Amino acid sequence: MQNERPFDLLNKVLGQQVMVRLKNKESIRGRLVSFDMHMNLVLENAEELNDGELKAKIGTILLRGGNIIFVSPA
Amino acid sequence: MQNERPFDLLNKVLGQQVMVRLKNKESIRGRLVSFDMHMNLVLENAEELNDGELKAKIGTILLRGGNIIFVSPA
Amino acid sequence: MQNERPFDLLNKVLGQQVMVRLKNKESIRGRLVSFDMHMNLVLENAEELNDGELKAKIGTILLRGGNIIFVSPA
Amino acid sequence: MQNERPFDLLNKVLGQQVMVRLKNKESIRGRLVSFDMHMNLVLENAEELNDGELKAKIGTILLRGGNIIFVSPA
Amino acid sequence: MQNERPFDLLNKVLGQQVMVRLKNKESIRGRLVSFDMHMNLVLENAEELNDGELKAKIGTILLRGGNIIFVSPA
Amino acid sequence: MQNERPFDLLNKVLGQQVMVRLKNKESIRGRLVSFDMHMNLVLENAEELNDGELKAKIGTILLRGGNIIFVSPA
Amino acid sequence: MQNERPFDLLNKVLGQQVMVRLKNKESIRGRLVSFDMHMNLVLENAEELNDGELKAKIGTILLRGGNIIFVSPA
Repeated sequence: MQNERPFDLLNKVLGQQVMVRLKNKESIRGRLVSFDMHMNLVLENAEELNDGELKAKIGTILLRGGNIIFVSPA
Repeated sequence: MQNERPFDLLNKVLGQQVMVRLKNKESIRGRLVSFDMHMNLVLENAEELNDGELKAKIGTILLRGGNIIFVSPA
Repeated sequence: MQNERPFDLLNKVLGQQVMVRLKNKESIRGRLVSFDMHMNLVLENAEELNDGELKAKIGTILLRGGNIIFVSPA
Repeated sequence: MQNERPFDLLNKVLGQQVMVRLKNKESIRGRLVSFDMHMNLVLENAEELNDGELKAKIGTILLRGGNIIFVSPA
Repeated sequence: MQNERPFDLLNKVLGQQVMVRLKNKESIRGRLVSFDMHMNLVLENAEELNDGELKAKIGTILLRGGNIIFVSPA
Repeated sequence: MQNERPFDLLNKVLGQQVMVRLKNKESIRGRLVSFDMHMNLVLENAEELNDGELKAKIGTILLRGGNIIFVSPA
Repeated sequence: MQNERPFDLLNKVLGQQVMVRLKNKESIRGRLVSFDMHMNLVLENAEELNDGELKAKIGTILLRGGNIIFVSPA
């Protein structure tokens, strides 16, 4: 029997750097500020990456959960 | 434990310029007038951008939340 | 704190000309007759546009909200 | 304030010829027999059109609302 | 005012041959055994067709409603 | 009036070999161990097929219902 | 009559190595730490595979259930 639920991971990494992979093949890296039950996320100091290379600095960003493939502590 | 929720960001930037990235790869930039829980947004003085270049001036626009990848203060 | 909600825009432009961008890259322009909470819309004197050029006159049309990217007063 | 709702159009054209545009770019034309709140439609004497040309006669058909882009009296 | 609803058509053709068009452009033809409110269907003696030509005999099949574009008595 | 519902087919073939066609054009064949109302399925001794040819042996597998086009006793 | 439900498989393999196939054709392999009713999963020591070859080591990862095609004990 599990003691944890998947969203516990988001709680643990609040305030830390995460990597978010999107359905459109881009990745966004930034500091996780908040999340909700739809996996909508706000990141600070966010950067857009393409194949691991920096494409653009975005600053603060609200990401829709529906476009996310995975979230991983960076 | 988080004190904020992702939609708080939208509240903070009401009346300010935001950049919205859409699933069809276009971006819309404009002044955020209103939003709802589906992330439907109304922008004023909206402009359509393609790869960062101005493609068209649209004026006032109601964007369906379901097509949004992210929203960022511009 | 916002005083408006996104659908207020649809209420304001009832009876007026709107431009609707669809997911299939087409646009429909016409007079907004009615809408509902799913953003289903009825337009009168509707015209189908492709890259801004008139493609076909459609007359009255019921558009499914789920295919809409944005609505803008034309 | 609007007095009508989008589905009123379907009620008005019951028994009449309608054109239905589908997400897969095909169109179906036929006499509207019934509809429900999901925009599922039954058409009689339905014909499948491709770029306005008759592709096949289908007869009676039940169309899933989820694939519909728009419905228009023909 | 309509007296019928779209799913009445499925009730009428229970036990009869139907043609089902799927989103992946294939068609399945077979005898309709049962359906539910999601338009999930069971067909018997089902055959897979491609551009009207027989591609494979499948026998009994449970089709997910979500992939269906239309159902038509064959 | 129908006496059966589509999911009855899954009940009948529990413990038997089934073929599952997925949206990504692959097929999975295996012994049906369990299912739920979302058409999530567990298969044992599952094999991945491509155009009818064995591509890989997978063993036990939990398939998400949302990706399934059809299920058929094999 | 079935005694099991599909999600029982996830319970059985908690703490063990699983292979997850995603809609974007990638696979993720790792130790299953937790799951929820949407099939959201947390994996530890996760690795991204492409056609069976190691593409990247990701560490801990939260996978959105909606992108999953299947989960299999590895």
